[in-house]
Amino acid sequence: MKVTERLRNPPLGPGRCLSPARIHSTCPGGVCKRRTKIETMVDLTQLMENEVFMAFASYTTIVLSKMMFMSTATAFYRLTRKVFANPEDCASFGKGEIAKKYLRTDDRVERVRRAHLNDLENIVPFLGIGLLYSLSGPDLSTAILHFRLFVGARIYHTIAYLIPLPQPNRALAFFLGYGVTLSMAYRLLRSRLYL
Amino acid sequence: MKVTERLRNPPLGPGRCLSPARIHSTCPGGVCKRRTKIETMVDLTQLMENEVFMAFASYTTIVLSKMMFMSTATAFYRLTRKVFANPEDCASFGKGEIAKKYLRTDDRVERVRRAHLNDLENIVPFLGIGLLYSLSGPDLSTAILHFRLFVGARIYHTIAYLIPLPQPNRALAFFLGYGVTLSMAYRLLRSRLYL
Amino acid sequence: MKVTERLRNPPLGPGRCLSPARIHSTCPGGVCKRRTKIETMVDLTQLMENEVFMAFASYTTIVLSKMMFMSTATAFYRLTRKVFANPEDCASFGKGEIAKKYLRTDDRVERVRRAHLNDLENIVPFLGIGLLYSLSGPDLSTAILHFRLFVGARIYHTIAYLIPLPQPNRALAFFLGYGVTLSMAYRLLRSRLYL
Repeated sequence: MKVTERLRNPPLGPGRCLSPARIHSTCPGGVCKRRTKIETMVDLTQLMENEVFMAFASYTTIVLSKMMFMSTATAFYRLTRKVFANPEDCASFGKGEIAKKYLRTDDRVERVRRAHLNDLENIVPFLGIGLLYSLSGPDLSTAILHFRLFVGARIYHTIAYLIPLPQPNRALAFFLGYGVTLSMAYRLLRSRLYL
Repeated sequence: MKVTERLRNPPLGPGRCLSPARIHSTCPGGVCKRRTKIETMVDLTQLMENEVFMAFASYTTIVLSKMMFMSTATAFYRLTRKVFANPEDCASFGKGEIAKKYLRTDDRVERVRRAHLNDLENIVPFLGIGLLYSLSGPDLSTAILHFRLFVGARIYHTIAYLIPLPQPNRALAFFLGYGVTLSMAYRLLRSRLYL
Repeated sequence: MKVTERLRNPPLGPGRCLSPARIHSTCPGGVCKRRTKIETMVDLTQLMENEVFMAFASYTTIVLSKMMFMSTATAFYRLTRKVFANPEDCASFGKGEIAKKYLRTDDRVERVRRAHLNDLENIVPFLGIGLLYSLSGPDLSTAILHFRLFVGARIYHTIAYLIPLPQPNRALAFFLGYGVTLSMAYRLLRSRLYL
């Protein structure tokens, strides 16, 4: 029997019926023949009542919103500095050769794009590992410490990249976020390895 | 006592035992000494019976498949236009200097790559925020409206980028998808903030 | 009544009360007036006791850690070859014009960055589709085969990209990982489509 079938229809036997026998009048002697729907409907929305998961949800939403802000920053610099990557984007500034001169690269825009890509490269592992870590039942205060350090590090990384602050400001922010994700990955692999 | 321990072994007391007392013959007076395994095995696969979560799963799978299609599009343009980024990719077209002339950039290929990167930058926040939003128990019709708008906007964005359609087609598609993700993030942070 | 309200407060009726009537003394005739908190608190941490989900968690953590390693590889090549993208990164090597000569691109660094971006483009769909696939109750051995093939393909892809091995090594590794993700997407859309 497959695992999923086993999960859906657990093998029945004495002592397995959770419903009071008086309700399932067709289940004699406490041996359940059918499962009540209600048992399986309460689960989902309660996921959000777990404190670690709620904290993960809040910090993730903040850090992803911050990442989305980078798109707006790129658009802002492209428009104010008139630096475009596509001919159709600068069509309103003129035609033919006049428009083509706006198809260039600019230090400021490239800097925002590098910061954005770096965010993407670091937030994706946090998203995956952090989600699994939250579900693996960590200690609440440890988990919140991880999330806070990561979100703080990424926000500081963006500030250090965009101003820009002298090194090693950006490098330290990067390695702090990196270390937090690795620490969660280590905990997951140590406690839950299943290959 | 830690939160996770509290979740695994909830404090026992009168009125806490879900198993009919006749089954747990060792639990006198309705006070449960052990928990039946069965209670905890039904949960997982039922997540997929929640309608909001199923809708999220379907729309996410579609939008991620669309994003994966961009890889194929890049490969297609690279092969038909003979534009490569790595020397080993064009080794079959000739040796030495002859092969090197294929190591170049091409407007068409760069356009697909920009569309792909833009997808990545927008679908990653949708993936994270949308998952948490689905689990936060939103109204079904509101949730489906969000998912439909996002998936529609991203498909239209890709079409507008690849043809290309004149602006502001692409910009509107981008900001529609962006707004949908922000709206879900706003709902999450307003109702479930836990810092 | 909204779906979420229905989930939280399922319509009551005879035969719906899971608590033995002797515990809910206020629920006459087996009709439950209130739900015990305990029923809803056990769910979350048990997600990790599902074998498919544990396998997904392990393989995902490995593949994301591998992707994070690419950041370190980029940093390593940038430092040993003195190739930088930001003026502040090479400020310690000299001032003004002397520092500017380090702001260049390098084949080796660009190769690592392309491998990293390719990872990102392929692991993000795996993360999203794989998570939903794991929750959709697949056969354990089929699921583990999918995860193993994907992780193996991505590790081989990185090796083939960085050494580099002659084509079609990298192309085969890419399409194997691509096919695995599509196969999971196909299974999800076939069995759980909800639009």
